Amino acid sequence: MFALARVHELAPQHPEWIQHQPFKAVLTDDRAAMGRFSESDWEIVLAATHSGMTTEAFVDLVKQWLVTAKDPRFHQPYTELVYQPMLEVMEYLRSNGFRTYIVTGGGQEFVRVYSQQVYGIPSEQVVGSSILTRYELLNGKPVLMREPKVFFIDDKSGKPVGINLFIGKRPYAAFGNSTGDQQMLEWTQAGDGARLMMLVLHDDAQREYAYGPATGLPDSKVGTFSQELYDEANSKGWTVISMKKDWKRIFGFEK
Amino acid sequence: MFALARVHELAPQHPEWIQHQPFKAVLTDDRAAMGRFSESDWEIVLAATHSGMTTEAFVDLVKQWLVTAKDPRFHQPYTELVYQPMLEVMEYLRSNGFRTYIVTGGGQEFVRVYSQQVYGIPSEQVVGSSILTRYELLNGKPVLMREPKVFFIDDKSGKPVGINLFIGKRPYAAFGNSTGDQQMLEWTQAGDGARLMMLVLHDDAQREYAYGPATGLPDSKVGTFSQELYDEANSKGWTVISMKKDWKRIFGFEK
Repeated sequence: MFALARVHELAPQHPEWIQHQPFKAVLTDDRAAMGRFSESDWEIVLAATHSGMTTEAFVDLVKQWLVTAKDPRFHQPYTELVYQPMLEVMEYLRSNGFRTYIVTGGGQEFVRVYSQQVYGIPSEQVVGSSILTRYELLNGKPVLMREPKVFFIDDKSGKPVGINLFIGKRPYAAFGNSTGDQQMLEWTQAGDGARLMMLVLHDDAQREYAYGPATGLPDSKVGTFSQELYDEANSKGWTVISMKKDWKRIFGFEK
Repeated sequence: MFALARVHELAPQHPEWIQHQPFKAVLTDDRAAMGRFSESDWEIVLAATHSGMTTEAFVDLVKQWLVTAKDPRFHQPYTELVYQPMLEVMEYLRSNGFRTYIVTGGGQEFVRVYSQQVYGIPSEQVVGSSILTRYELLNGKPVLMREPKVFFIDDKSGKPVGINLFIGKRPYAAFGNSTGDQQMLEWTQAGDGARLMMLVLHDDAQREYAYGPATGLPDSKVGTFSQELYDEANSKGWTVISMKKDWKRIFGFEK
């Protein structure tokens, strides 16, 4: 949503965008076309909207957006659209001596802006996807410039790679909600002794969303939870959490 | 030293090495030729000796080497060749609420093997150079294979980039000893408020080593401390520590 808002903001400086995909679909709010975006389409959008500025300027943009943007369905700031059971399990783990990390396919520098306030997780415990930054002197002041080039994709096989790279330790518990988390859960389970692997299934169209295609839920190109992943979870003893049946309360703002 | 020992160990499986540089110089112990190695020569040696195994097998190799190898001059294990004032300043900072990190041009996974025991620094607080790892199933078990390809060089401009990538915060104090640390100290100083920047000058040939070429010390291709860096330190108010004059005791094993 941040990237899409940035495309609209930057469009006046890029008159050619309205002629070309993937920008055309964003600018004309063509949701069907956006639903068919490939990963490479999203990378083009991310590179164009997340780069060409210093790391500090980027943080300021994200902060500004977070205080003004609201989700059109729930009429809440995005920082409120956080799962209450996720906050509770992290708090429970931390109060029992665990350190909690966010390991996200999303942008590392984006998530770090609100990770402390929203999840109680400091920036150094956020492992995510990142673009290349380059050290340079800007008017004599050292800065890190964000380049339009992907540096690391923290998704699928990238998740165990990122965990080893940033932390150098294997998780005792890992929680996911899509095929992007498969290898992270496998890597967690391959450790010695007791390990906990859990996956959240979005099967509650009323209170949140319903998609899979696991268990016959509607298919989705974003956050796919495949039947193969569901079967792997069952065969390996991973717990699949049903949002509909297992979660009393999904968001903190619910009554 | 670890990489050089590995070249000797692996040589029987690579009969061609004795004919080709940089391996020939290592195998014939040609120190003059090794002294002229370029960064690319070292990268070839590192790629050949640090890859082609799982991350766990690599850790085991490093552990084995550390308990057997001794420095030929000081007759001590390499884990004892650690500066006492460095241990003391880190302990002092930690006991005053700071978190201490190692930000090294050296191999991240190598340093992590002994960072806790030797420096009191856990693996997730070691930021270093790394090679690419790839997630795969080896006999059905998930592993991370170390590939013969450099992923990240945590040196010079790479140091502020690595700090921002791994930590996402700017240091309040930074300590270095070579031109590889220049940008890290500049980046530290560019933060708001009080910051501490210090450089150790190896000017004690008797108790340790003497090299620069700053202040007329002998030149060195490894760990270069240039006159330019020395001048920058003076002009920017960074403290240059003389090992000879400022350090009562260099190593913990000294009487």
